[in-house]
Amino acid sequence: MTGMVYLVGSGPGDPELLTVKARRLIDEADVVLHDKLPGPEILASIPEAKREDVGKRAGGEWTPQEYTNHRLVELAEDGKTVVRLKGGDPFVFGRGGEEAEHLAANDVPFEYVPGVTSAVAGPGVAGVPVTHRDHTSSVTFVTGHEDPTKEESAVDWHALAEGGGTLVVLMGVGKLPAYTGELLEAGMDPATPVALVERATWPGQRVATGTLGDAVEVRDREGVEPPAITVIGDVAATRGRVAAFLRNGPGGQEESE
Amino acid sequence: MTGMVYLVGSGPGDPELLTVKARRLIDEADVVLHDKLPGPEILASIPEAKREDVGKRAGGEWTPQEYTNHRLVELAEDGKTVVRLKGGDPFVFGRGGEEAEHLAANDVPFEYVPGVTSAVAGPGVAGVPVTHRDHTSSVTFVTGHEDPTKEESAVDWHALAEGGGTLVVLMGVGKLPAYTGELLEAGMDPATPVALVERATWPGQRVATGTLGDAVEVRDREGVEPPAITVIGDVAATRGRVAAFLRNGPGGQEESE
Repeated sequence: MTGMVYLVGSGPGDPELLTVKARRLIDEADVVLHDKLPGPEILASIPEAKREDVGKRAGGEWTPQEYTNHRLVELAEDGKTVVRLKGGDPFVFGRGGEEAEHLAANDVPFEYVPGVTSAVAGPGVAGVPVTHRDHTSSVTFVTGHEDPTKEESAVDWHALAEGGGTLVVLMGVGKLPAYTGELLEAGMDPATPVALVERATWPGQRVATGTLGDAVEVRDREGVEPPAITVIGDVAATRGRVAAFLRNGPGGQEESE
Repeated sequence: MTGMVYLVGSGPGDPELLTVKARRLIDEADVVLHDKLPGPEILASIPEAKREDVGKRAGGEWTPQEYTNHRLVELAEDGKTVVRLKGGDPFVFGRGGEEAEHLAANDVPFEYVPGVTSAVAGPGVAGVPVTHRDHTSSVTFVTGHEDPTKEESAVDWHALAEGGGTLVVLMGVGKLPAYTGELLEAGMDPATPVALVERATWPGQRVATGTLGDAVEVRDREGVEPPAITVIGDVAATRGRVAAFLRNGPGGQEESE
């Protein structure tokens, strides 16, 4: 009797931003396969006995995706109910699509359980709506951390600069100089507002703001570190208009910058 | 003593896809201001006595945004704890940004509570991951239902066609002929896979698939109606590889097409 795999999004890190369904499935599962991305608070809420960390092995090596794929099938064939817990949403830069295909190719039934994506929530908790009727009709999510085996970036920054919508770059701290440079070269206004949100919804959340022209300087001066999200576009200026009344920080107060 | 406003995302419609926090805040609130977008199941789970529908007034007229803004401030000044409940996420085409600015301008404290966005979950429950390492490095959300007072579309479909990433069009059934036409004209391959997801996670969820070239024909033949989401890009073909083992439909079985 084959078990069942749930590909579950954990949301951005706050345990209260788990969905009701994610919480129930975690509590009912035989095994929860996870990496570090769900964050310390959510992982601490799962009994140690049912947790299996496929993020990093002893010795600091990363577990290859092939091992995770293999382990999901193995557990399901053993009749287990498995939660594969992923930060944010499984289908937003989460390799959930690859895992779904691997499960289907091995005749393992699975269900996708969406989560709150950090690409929306991260800017949001900093007072930045990714869309706004007055400023933009579209939003694009890109990853700053592409497959390192790819020879060149698959992201067409020039087309993005021309599109005029909000840009949200996930895991985008390290390569900030590269892509802000490409956007400027493509003609995007250096005065375009930018917000950097570090550790969104995690303990120690921080926000730094600037412009496309000085974003790298702001990053270095404020010491912004991964994990962080970059928002580029007029919507980033919304923060300045709402921050004094925004109560999304720790203890219900906005964090200081 | 001023009250507090929570701008809360309800997720795509399944009550179990509310976040733990949204569920708690709804249960604790004095008043829940909502429209129809959270869907029938979530609205039915809220006691009638605390619900206030700002979606449509008697007589079929839409409530202007100005009334909703005014009512939020009025309730907060009366010391109430208010949940402003919005379908999906408040900051993804939800006018949450405007409401946040209005609250701040009137000295009303507020908190943003992100929700599962239908732009990710809608494709996902149909077996379509909006990103996939093998196919795309970016995803763009656009709305097919722009401000009708705008003279021309603010969406640059040509730039989107060039970008090469996944496109997700929300509320995109009615204007499907217009924007598929623009994408084809911009040189996008007519064989690009397309999926139409109607009533994602609601009772009666349906999926129809085709290509950029025949999407309008598919919509008409299958009778796809709003609310529905359009996904355009190679990722849409993932559905064909996983649907037989996907258990996201009613009763845990995939819905038939």
